[in-house]
Amino acid sequence: MSHAEKKARTTTDEYELIYWPRLPGRGEPIRLLLEEAGASYTDTAHEKDGIQKVVGALKPDFDPGKDNLPGLAPPMLRCGDLFISQSPNIMLFLGERLKLIPGDVEINKYRVNQLVLTMLDLQNEVHDSHHPIAVSLYYDDQKAEAKRKAEDVRNARIPKFFNYFELVIGKSEGPYLLSEFSYADLVLWHLVDGCLYAFPKAMNRQFEKSPKVKELYDTVAKRARIAAYLSSERRQKYDNGIYRYYEELDE
Amino acid sequence: MSHAEKKARTTTDEYELIYWPRLPGRGEPIRLLLEEAGASYTDTAHEKDGIQKVVGALKPDFDPGKDNLPGLAPPMLRCGDLFISQSPNIMLFLGERLKLIPGDVEINKYRVNQLVLTMLDLQNEVHDSHHPIAVSLYYDDQKAEAKRKAEDVRNARIPKFFNYFELVIGKSEGPYLLSEFSYADLVLWHLVDGCLYAFPKAMNRQFEKSPKVKELYDTVAKRARIAAYLSSERRQKYDNGIYRYYEELDE
Repeated sequence: MSHAEKKARTTTDEYELIYWPRLPGRGEPIRLLLEEAGASYTDTAHEKDGIQKVVGALKPDFDPGKDNLPGLAPPMLRCGDLFISQSPNIMLFLGERLKLIPGDVEINKYRVNQLVLTMLDLQNEVHDSHHPIAVSLYYDDQKAEAKRKAEDVRNARIPKFFNYFELVIGKSEGPYLLSEFSYADLVLWHLVDGCLYAFPKAMNRQFEKSPKVKELYDTVAKRARIAAYLSSERRQKYDNGIYRYYEELDE
Repeated sequence: MSHAEKKARTTTDEYELIYWPRLPGRGEPIRLLLEEAGASYTDTAHEKDGIQKVVGALKPDFDPGKDNLPGLAPPMLRCGDLFISQSPNIMLFLGERLKLIPGDVEINKYRVNQLVLTMLDLQNEVHDSHHPIAVSLYYDDQKAEAKRKAEDVRNARIPKFFNYFELVIGKSEGPYLLSEFSYADLVLWHLVDGCLYAFPKAMNRQFEKSPKVKELYDTVAKRARIAAYLSSERRQKYDNGIYRYYEELDE
């Protein structure tokens, strides 16, 4: 993509991302869309009173503005008068708005959304590998169950999903999921990155069977704005979020 | 809504739903959209070779047609040249196509999609209440873990989500989630119905705190086409799907 094309993608809209500080979490795929498009955005993760803003948006008396709905949980996004939540929903909005859906947008948006929803299904299962019983309990309180769950995620679920993504990239002839770059590639990059962090042994074995997914992962990381983001201070380290590393859960 | 308005909603498109027979499952919310709109559709659940069609669509060499992507799992939908999967994605497509999004569709589609994604999050948790470890294992092989998980779903998750839906209906002043009927109401009907089947005791307690959700549930069931569908042979009974009744999981 030329510099001029990149410039053309930039929008003058202002976006406000509302998400917990201190971990990439469910906010991260959204950030990747904003960064790839060179969008102008604020992020409560980097604001002094960020936590208060997130907590405030979760109170029953929070006013999201005319005709808007409150969200059950972050991430939430404000753009002008619109306030929305649910990460695949936010990404669909941004994908359309920031031109991260190639070709015939009115058709391809369903294809990209399908892929992203599938990725987030696996992301939820990876989360549940350390929290299979309750999000309100500590890992230590569900360690035995987590060991069983993680075994299934490593040995059955990761292979199932990654074989599917490998098949899809094969059909597009690569390096991306569709015949052109789309925001689904950013979400897959994040999924692979998170799984590599959580299950390094299992994922390095999986890469042998999913060379096209590995190639996509490497290719996306080299996109100019993504590379700049990943080496910036805006990129947060994995912590006690969706993707966690517990040696005992990676065999 | 007048009879004329209902007629206007009807489309001449033909839809093909590809989903497992013998249980409502993840196909059911999609069926509710098709039924509410009076759409013309076929359903592999009621075809003699339905299972073979679903199995065929899951094979690596399945050809979904030009530019289409295979799906990881059913439900899948074909409409003309388009083939898509992922239930919230299919419902977004149908919601736009069948005019089940009120008002300014280009904005309200994100609001309806947000609500539906939130409902499906709880639906996944209800599924995991009997299968917290692995979908490939029997319930009996994860019964102890299921008991712990179900306790959290009943006591923390169902209240959290239903309090949220109650808040949203309160803001619209009822009886629906938005100020007018949308397909999110159909999905909430299905979620309530499934939870009532799985956790009758817990849900009847929850209804005391969520009278608006209960009213929406009753109102949707009385919509002419939904009532006709629910009393038809097309409506399948709950079985070993997402929503299951195990007495020990409802205390």
